[in-house]
Amino acid sequence: MSLERASLNWKGWGRPEAAASFSPARAQWMIEELGRRLGSVLTPNPSRAELSEVKLPPPRLSESILARLRGACGEAAVRTDAAARVTHALGRSLPDLFRLRRGEIESAPDAIVAPADEAAVVAVLRIAAECQLAVVPVGGASSVVGGVEPHLAPGQAGSIALDTTRLDAVIRIDGQSGLATFGAGIDGPALEVALAGHGLTLGHFPQSFEHSTLGGWVATRSSGQLSDRYGAIDELLVAVRLVTPEGVVRTATVPRSATGPDLNQLVLGSEGTLGVIVEATVRVAPAPESSDERAILFRSFHDGVEAVRELVRGRAGLSLLRLSDGAETGLSRLQRHDPEKRIDPVDWVFSGLARLGYRDDSAALLYGAEGGAGAVRAAVSRARSVARAHGGVPLGRSPGRSWRRERFRTPYLRDWMLDRGVAVDTFETAFSWGVLESGHESVVRVIRDAAERHSGGGFAMTHLSHSYLDGACLYFTVLYPVDASREVSQWTAIKRDVTDAILSAGGTLSHHHGVGSDHRPWMETEKGSLGLAALRSLKGALDPAGIMNPGKLL
Amino acid sequence: MSLERASLNWKGWGRPEAAASFSPARAQWMIEELGRRLGSVLTPNPSRAELSEVKLPPPRLSESILARLRGACGEAAVRTDAAARVTHALGRSLPDLFRLRRGEIESAPDAIVAPADEAAVVAVLRIAAECQLAVVPVGGASSVVGGVEPHLAPGQAGSIALDTTRLDAVIRIDGQSGLATFGAGIDGPALEVALAGHGLTLGHFPQSFEHSTLGGWVATRSSGQLSDRYGAIDELLVAVRLVTPEGVVRTATVPRSATGPDLNQLVLGSEGTLGVIVEATVRVAPAPESSDERAILFRSFHDGVEAVRELVRGRAGLSLLRLSDGAETGLSRLQRHDPEKRIDPVDWVFSGLARLGYRDDSAALLYGAEGGAGAVRAAVSRARSVARAHGGVPLGRSPGRSWRRERFRTPYLRDWMLDRGVAVDTFETAFSWGVLESGHESVVRVIRDAAERHSGGGFAMTHLSHSYLDGACLYFTVLYPVDASREVSQWTAIKRDVTDAILSAGGTLSHHHGVGSDHRPWMETEKGSLGLAALRSLKGALDPAGIMNPGKLL
Repeated sequence: MSLERASLNWKGWGRPEAAASFSPARAQWMIEELGRRLGSVLTPNPSRAELSEVKLPPPRLSESILARLRGACGEAAVRTDAAARVTHALGRSLPDLFRLRRGEIESAPDAIVAPADEAAVVAVLRIAAECQLAVVPVGGASSVVGGVEPHLAPGQAGSIALDTTRLDAVIRIDGQSGLATFGAGIDGPALEVALAGHGLTLGHFPQSFEHSTLGGWVATRSSGQLSDRYGAIDELLVAVRLVTPEGVVRTATVPRSATGPDLNQLVLGSEGTLGVIVEATVRVAPAPESSDERAILFRSFHDGVEAVRELVRGRAGLSLLRLSDGAETGLSRLQRHDPEKRIDPVDWVFSGLARLGYRDDSAALLYGAEGGAGAVRAAVSRARSVARAHGGVPLGRSPGRSWRRERFRTPYLRDWMLDRGVAVDTFETAFSWGVLESGHESVVRVIRDAAERHSGGGFAMTHLSHSYLDGACLYFTVLYPVDASREVSQWTAIKRDVTDAILSAGGTLSHHHGVGSDHRPWMETEKGSLGLAALRSLKGALDPAGIMNPGKLL
Repeated sequence: MSLERASLNWKGWGRPEAAASFSPARAQWMIEELGRRLGSVLTPNPSRAELSEVKLPPPRLSESILARLRGACGEAAVRTDAAARVTHALGRSLPDLFRLRRGEIESAPDAIVAPADEAAVVAVLRIAAECQLAVVPVGGASSVVGGVEPHLAPGQAGSIALDTTRLDAVIRIDGQSGLATFGAGIDGPALEVALAGHGLTLGHFPQSFEHSTLGGWVATRSSGQLSDRYGAIDELLVAVRLVTPEGVVRTATVPRSATGPDLNQLVLGSEGTLGVIVEATVRVAPAPESSDERAILFRSFHDGVEAVRELVRGRAGLSLLRLSDGAETGLSRLQRHDPEKRIDPVDWVFSGLARLGYRDDSAALLYGAEGGAGAVRAAVSRARSVARAHGGVPLGRSPGRSWRRERFRTPYLRDWMLDRGVAVDTFETAFSWGVLESGHESVVRVIRDAAERHSGGGFAMTHLSHSYLDGACLYFTVLYPVDASREVSQWTAIKRDVTDAILSAGGTLSHHHGVGSDHRPWMETEKGSLGLAALRSLKGALDPAGIMNPGKLL
């Protein structure tokens, strides 16, 4: 059941066999269209690095430390080979990909340990504390914010990646309570398979679902595609066991408490800086009887936002509300276009709609419900009627079917585009409704300016997803021509400008990607200096030697 | 708009004019029936203390300290008179009432300061830190867990009650976002009136609603009667300003973040031990178009629990699910019985139902929905059909109307009973569904045993309320004949036995009353020693001198 790291693409998203691919004609046509949008001819930039050729810094751990780690976890559970070091060195942020694709890794763990139980985790942390080693807990390593790369605090002698994927037991499934307890290293598919056997679901489907872990979701405050129905991971977590260098923090399996600050909420988002999450108990729901996803087109993003806001504030009971702005709606049509077909039915529909005022700015909303058949029908019908009142025109079920089929596929496109010289990065935040549209406009403007200034051109698009009574997440994507001679500095400059713009517009530093090292410079702005000091004091209590994931989050 | 403390009953619940009263015949009948249930003849025990006669310890603050406090808050905002000291000395727990009714207060604040803005709060905390004074933030003072009584840490020279009720501004109501910002001292009715002007509601109705404050709700992790629809205060809080001795912690007004541990969740439940909550921004919902509350009778508590669980796990959309066990259902009938009427229609209905198997164990469920008219109809009809499948028989709308009319009245009965020699105390917890019924049985058994052992008899009853996908709150009430010669020790003994039983049965130390000083001895069991140490380190960062509400929570 364990997540097999060897089955993952070591220098790209997910699994190699799922890589994006298009027919030569479609690929050619897409490259031309992308070039046109980016205002430049694209220069192919394929990665030629092989796993065996990656340059790594020399390992630093003495044989005696390795022997102690082997004593704690077992012989086979401690690795120092290059392949293990490479596959535990980085996450999957854009700058991580730049480094992996070049085969140049500046910082890699000196050893990888994969404890099989809590006692072994306790022992590893004791050794690490005694030997002044940094410890980076690694689950699926799908962080897109620099959460995986090891950093050393002053005085530290080396680093360990603590691979959690052997902590993957299905510990207890309690259908009566609707609770399930798992080892934190279990991955998404294994967890859902175990629950499906009991007619249950967690309903947590982040884009990394297929190769990320429960512990990673908790550690990063992950949110899934159906969070409007099931809640984000912070609403799903009931109890947790966190092994820290000072001992185990455990919370009680009760539905709610009024007994002071909530310790679960300290573990949620701790990103490996307080300890290792070894076990989590989550609320699980009955598996849905039925589901229905469809699309509607609005004349503008504004009309769509108003419709979504009315649906959410009216508690329409939808599980999915994903509204793309004009730019994203257009690019998504581009992706679906087949230049080999003489007549493209989608184009045909859209040119008809254009005559009705649904032009380049028109915004597609994917909406859906799941649950009991009657409730699903009622929610979908309510959505349709509210959307119509805001000028929405139904696009039917076909986009919904595509969404369900391809819901975990989008990140694979990033690798395909990188091969063709196009960098793709995403920025996500959440805004209150009152500032969401102004936030959309100002952030998109800054993305375009930044891409223009730092890379000579670029393309920005946005969707709204994960709605709340008081606001929603906006997810921005930028495409820009990558300059192979200064990949990382180009990215850094764009990242800085866009993040500043998000915070100035009233957004949060991250809605669901987390902080890692990439967002860390803005944490004082986000939390205030005293708030940050409070969190650091907490870390001081649980990790006085500062061995847990130094350089991240706090 | 301020909560007028002088309008409150200084030695009982709420406002004097709302005190419980019955016709002499009903009162006599109730006393007899209660005596029968408690197995003893009740000895009246009226309180004869007058506010002006209450014995207080002498005040300890020097004129120079008082002058500094007056300089910070204004002349009229600093009081040292006996009336102010008495009304800020205690909450409304049962042992608090014993002391107030006797007019014997061992620990009272030396001065009461009522700052009118954040700057004044900052100044008061600075003075308190410099002069080593304990500071107890006091809102509505309706704590039932000993959250108000001042305790001094070693070395402290005196105590201040920081009355928050002048911090009661309506700061901003943003109907588009569904957000409202208030001074934390605003009380429930003032807050709802302000929102009603915009067609909005917070939907937070704890039993203390009429005389408790927003800041108090946040500080204690309060939950309201309609939490099934609106969520508890932790789900309603979006942003907060907390003045600590080290400065201000403020959180961002965004619907959600994945930027590390959630600082809101540290302020929630902090019970004045980290600082003073001066401002809070909350999610507000459209005021409901319609509402409908009704009752259904089940043959047993078990049948009712199964129906409630099915409704909750099936997301039936109810706002109220309050299931009384047989004992509570019986006592509630007793309360409604009018011995002056020759034929009581309720009795008549129940004797008919008894022939159908709805006997002494039968359990009444109050259920309700609010929102759009169609959704309310659908939810109520769903509830009825699920309840019927579990053997429920409808009792109609009349109990629902009584509930709405009397929803804040129950605690007043406690004073009426105390006058008649009956102590009433409540214990509340939350259980996962899987242990809820065994928890009910074992805790009721311990309550009866404890009442028998410590007071020669007693009566226990329970209701379920506040449901979650994975469990619900159980709210236990005990009635026992009070021994006036050892009121507090009698209470302490019962409290200890019952709290131990709740934790042994898998419940939490408190679902919504909080910790205060009464639950503090069990906090290490609840949070674990390392969890508690982590929270203490947090306090150390924000309140290094330990002036904030010492002796509470942590």
